[in-house]
Amino acid sequence: LTMSDELCIGTIRCLAIDMVAGAKSGHPGAPMGMAPIAHTLFSKHLNFDPKDPDWINRDRFVLSNGHGCALLYSMLHLTGYDLPMSEIKNFRQLGSKTPGHPERMEGHVGVEITTGPLGQGIASAVGFALTQKHLAERFNKPGHTLFDHFTYVFCGDGCLMEGVACEATSFAGHLKLGNLIVVYDDNQITIDGPTSLTYSEDVEAKYQALGWHTTVVTDGDTDLVAMNKALEECKAVTDKPSMILLKTTIGFGSKMQGTAKVHGAPLAADDIKQVKTKAGLDPEASYAVSDDVYAAYKKSVAANGGAKHAKWQQTWKSYATAHPAEHAELDSFLKGKLPDGWEKTLPMSKEGEKKATRQCSEISLNAIAPAVTNLIGGSADLTGSNLTRAKDSTDISQDSAVGRYIRFGIREHAMAAIANGIAAYGAMIPFIATFFNFVTYAWGAVRVGALSELGVIHIATHDSIGLGEDGPTHQPIEVPALCRATPNLYFYRPCDQTETSATYLNAIENRKAQHVVALSRQGVPMLSTSSVEGVRKGAYCIFGDVKTADVIIVSSGTEVSLAIEAAKIYGNAAVVSLVCSRLFDEQSATYRESVLPVGTPVVGVEPFSGVGWERYCHYFMGLKGFGASAPAPKVYDLFGLTKENIAEKAKALVAKLGKNAPSLHPIEL
Amino acid sequence: LTMSDELCIGTIRCLAIDMVAGAKSGHPGAPMGMAPIAHTLFSKHLNFDPKDPDWINRDRFVLSNGHGCALLYSMLHLTGYDLPMSEIKNFRQLGSKTPGHPERMEGHVGVEITTGPLGQGIASAVGFALTQKHLAERFNKPGHTLFDHFTYVFCGDGCLMEGVACEATSFAGHLKLGNLIVVYDDNQITIDGPTSLTYSEDVEAKYQALGWHTTVVTDGDTDLVAMNKALEECKAVTDKPSMILLKTTIGFGSKMQGTAKVHGAPLAADDIKQVKTKAGLDPEASYAVSDDVYAAYKKSVAANGGAKHAKWQQTWKSYATAHPAEHAELDSFLKGKLPDGWEKTLPMSKEGEKKATRQCSEISLNAIAPAVTNLIGGSADLTGSNLTRAKDSTDISQDSAVGRYIRFGIREHAMAAIANGIAAYGAMIPFIATFFNFVTYAWGAVRVGALSELGVIHIATHDSIGLGEDGPTHQPIEVPALCRATPNLYFYRPCDQTETSATYLNAIENRKAQHVVALSRQGVPMLSTSSVEGVRKGAYCIFGDVKTADVIIVSSGTEVSLAIEAAKIYGNAAVVSLVCSRLFDEQSATYRESVLPVGTPVVGVEPFSGVGWERYCHYFMGLKGFGASAPAPKVYDLFGLTKENIAEKAKALVAKLGKNAPSLHPIEL
Ligand SMILES: [Ca+2]
Ligand SMILES: [Ca+2]
Repeated sequence: LTMSDELCIGTIRCLAIDMVAGAKSGHPGAPMGMAPIAHTLFSKHLNFDPKDPDWINRDRFVLSNGHGCALLYSMLHLTGYDLPMSEIKNFRQLGSKTPGHPERMEGHVGVEITTGPLGQGIASAVGFALTQKHLAERFNKPGHTLFDHFTYVFCGDGCLMEGVACEATSFAGHLKLGNLIVVYDDNQITIDGPTSLTYSEDVEAKYQALGWHTTVVTDGDTDLVAMNKALEECKAVTDKPSMILLKTTIGFGSKMQGTAKVHGAPLAADDIKQVKTKAGLDPEASYAVSDDVYAAYKKSVAANGGAKHAKWQQTWKSYATAHPAEHAELDSFLKGKLPDGWEKTLPMSKEGEKKATRQCSEISLNAIAPAVTNLIGGSADLTGSNLTRAKDSTDISQDSAVGRYIRFGIREHAMAAIANGIAAYGAMIPFIATFFNFVTYAWGAVRVGALSELGVIHIATHDSIGLGEDGPTHQPIEVPALCRATPNLYFYRPCDQTETSATYLNAIENRKAQHVVALSRQGVPMLSTSSVEGVRKGAYCIFGDVKTADVIIVSSGTEVSLAIEAAKIYGNAAVVSLVCSRLFDEQSATYRESVLPVGTPVVGVEPFSGVGWERYCHYFMGLKGFGASAPAPKVYDLFGLTKENIAEKAKALVAKLGKNAPSLHPIEL
Repeated sequence: LTMSDELCIGTIRCLAIDMVAGAKSGHPGAPMGMAPIAHTLFSKHLNFDPKDPDWINRDRFVLSNGHGCALLYSMLHLTGYDLPMSEIKNFRQLGSKTPGHPERMEGHVGVEITTGPLGQGIASAVGFALTQKHLAERFNKPGHTLFDHFTYVFCGDGCLMEGVACEATSFAGHLKLGNLIVVYDDNQITIDGPTSLTYSEDVEAKYQALGWHTTVVTDGDTDLVAMNKALEECKAVTDKPSMILLKTTIGFGSKMQGTAKVHGAPLAADDIKQVKTKAGLDPEASYAVSDDVYAAYKKSVAANGGAKHAKWQQTWKSYATAHPAEHAELDSFLKGKLPDGWEKTLPMSKEGEKKATRQCSEISLNAIAPAVTNLIGGSADLTGSNLTRAKDSTDISQDSAVGRYIRFGIREHAMAAIANGIAAYGAMIPFIATFFNFVTYAWGAVRVGALSELGVIHIATHDSIGLGEDGPTHQPIEVPALCRATPNLYFYRPCDQTETSATYLNAIENRKAQHVVALSRQGVPMLSTSSVEGVRKGAYCIFGDVKTADVIIVSSGTEVSLAIEAAKIYGNAAVVSLVCSRLFDEQSATYRESVLPVGTPVVGVEPFSGVGWERYCHYFMGLKGFGASAPAPKVYDLFGLTKENIAEKAKALVAKLGKNAPSLHPIEL
């Protein structure tokens, strides 16, 4: 422990406790306990350039125990990121860049991924490591090493106990991600008390069984030499992810150190003072950072990441000359540019054909994958059902990460968190796949992705009772309402090839939202009236004329063709395809009223819960309970979702409402 | 392998493949591979009495790889459960007791828990084992062993890779559940292909690190002696859960055995014939069971479970005399009877007090726990925040399971699945707790619980932007819509002590549904007009007079008192507390129209997504995006959820609609 190290660590600790005290809420325990390892990592290992926080080959740092974010913000401030002291003092206040948990979004520089919901950070970090490995194997050339950085994760007991972390770390071990280094803050405390209350794993043996390299630091409070050595050791192990089991004292320095009491509330004023005194700081000063501390970090950042970044820029420049095609391709990835005219490859419906929309999706993917060469993704062990592996795809495996197809295993939650990491990395466009009903297994990550404006495409097949025999355990009822209620998530249910391709067009273009694409197991007719422009507006008339129809049937996906059959039975009826309710809601009132004219009765048809459908119809035909296990046509019959019954209900609704149906459009005040 | 064993195993295999062939869909691979262990378990170890399938001390059997349910149904049929051959032949057909995945529900005897969604079975089985241990320690007396059964689980790679299983098995290891025995069908195959594609764990070493006893059977295809020995060995280990790593060949006997091709589709007709020939059965006969096979199982069932059950009945009888109080208490648990007058203990609001509704919940629990002595539950490491530990509670720990408070660790998904298991066991009333936003981490289990009619109470605190500084990662937006869209799930958001107590009353009485109770972090005034009867109807007028009001404000939970303040500003306005929309929807049209009279404009207020609110209001005030990190009052201001703004919008709505607002009530056709 040099003078400078000691001062830096003390400063980090005291900044963190001042932030929590200033906000009158927050978590001092983890920042105090992890200040020494944070100092060691940021001053001696982590390569980054605060002047160019988006530099693609920077080391990624993830504070998976996001409640300890006072630590992250302190480090970002001290090492020169655009996070001034005013933001530090504004911790957990409205409009600050220092919210209660780290939120990855525009302007929050240095926050690589949103954390706080436990387990998400470490799982998304696996996505960082995987993307780095893919890009390194794909674009590095002899003499031109563009990608060689590490991904570092801090996490606590909370993260490691979460299922999503268990899945992700198993996956990382399988893929031998040697560029991933996790520091486990082994402080023997969780919120409820000592870990002995709930957690008896031999964590080291477990991670070895998962194929990880492990190393233990027995004194994480003061032994900087050991911490440094452990980081060096892990960086040298390139064929396995590494975990440092760091024994620390939660709230180190506080009078209540080593107890759950120091986890999640401000320290008492007198406790803060004695921490500062022990750290050699002025007990009366708050948010105090000496010039020496700023200078020490400025020097180390310049020597590490600064120097590496300068050298990298040279490499990148000469790469342009030596490998112009690869340079251009990677450059377009980094700039988020799609190849000119890629959308022309999108296949459209051929009338007369019948296909499952998951097959339409496969056809679309087969067209997109060769054109959009940063599309990467896979399935949670349902490749043959989700139909997500484009022709001529290559798997990412233990031996090679150059391919673009990922075998996620039966790990839906980790898959979604990893996809968030891939999207946040800043080069690739991730898609992932499972059955629609099991998107909820992954919801923790889906919501964080939506909140963080991360562009992930969720391919969700077997989307309804139309899957038939697998039964109600596999038939979603509540999932569409969930998706529609989630901000910044676009839920699509295309009805044929044209709508499926248009869905991919939207999803690939909008790189700042989560996209859930519900696709059918069973076949439906391809339509001649489906339209790309219609999909872009979320809903449109796909049959008949809404202006003159007695009644409109609004439906989505596989029930659109059923609705058309019902409309034909009825006679003067029109059908609207509601592909994406959020896109429709975003349209002008004029457009919305042109699709659903005021006065005309509307029947809604979708084999799900009707929650939310009051906005789009006067009478809803769907499911009130769970589904049933039987061949699909029998299940549709059981729930009255037949063309005859729909036509009958339309007739009854017209009899009731005539031309005076109340407006469905939201009242603006 | 005796003649009889061989014939039984062949019969199981062939029944399973005939079922899948008959249904033209399903999963033959796992049943064929696991037929030998199923035969060994059911004929030599599993204690049950098909004549009394609810016998409380039966061994529990869980087929966690539920897609292999042809195996389960075959075993239930062969061993004498009320599952006749007609049901076997009706596999995956409408209305059968043999759906595509096992569904625990009325009439589906022998199905202990719903499985199919991977990982749920093994996690719920932990709930079985925990409940057994609790009841054994609580009610067994010297000479009176009422509870001494085992819980057996079959599972495959799919289950073990799921996060929910990782969480649950870690928890089981921590609690040293020696009455839990898992058979891992280690067949080296998943749907996508060989496990080497995705799964490189040293499973045995991992489970040892989790505190499990492990044993390997290298030939699970034919070595019945080894399988039997492994089961004996695991039963003898009483201080750890056990795992048998059983190496099997998926689809054993098929021409495609050992490959993913045999996992999830019917075998070809010629393949079926050769399997039957190899098994010594008539290749032309379908669903063939010889009298010898029925006789063999009849004999073994009588000798095992039959004899044990008869003896148990004697014990139970003499227990009544020796321990009358305990007998009466346990008897009421088993019959689902609540103590007379328990509901009189429920605390009501005292006007003038201010409390967080999570505090109201704590007060209710403190009253309920001593009265309802089969209430059992805990929190996922948020005890001090969820306020779920009643006074004088005792923890369930490694050393003693006699308490009724469970420290689940940071394992939300497993917690919910375990609670399903506790509910399915048939004696205890489980509650569990986390932050409302993290109920979605557990959704896989919540939905299975709703589908299976399992009575679990989810205590979900910190339910909105009112939690303030922790920010949008912790502030639910979409979760209420999800809950409301889920069949057989009651979502409550009580506004004060009276409503919270009434919520518990409903939830404890309805033992066939999932109940999610959203509770606040922040304080609100206790009201004098809140009502138990109102809560029972889901919604009711809590302020003013809906019949004469210009405008009605519908709200829930912490915003009810805000709505009342807004109504006071407005003047002639009434407020409706929508505690539980599902209960309200279940009321008569007359009642619903008495609460929301046709013609009167209605403003809805809830700090969530408005999806679904079109049914309860003409104009909704909530959140369109995610929340914000700041002190709660500032967040409410930011989103316009202030009494002044609500009053203003109410005024504007009245100006727009007058007394001619359209009906909000569903049209019946
Ligand atoms: Ca900890
Ligand atoms: Ca397997």
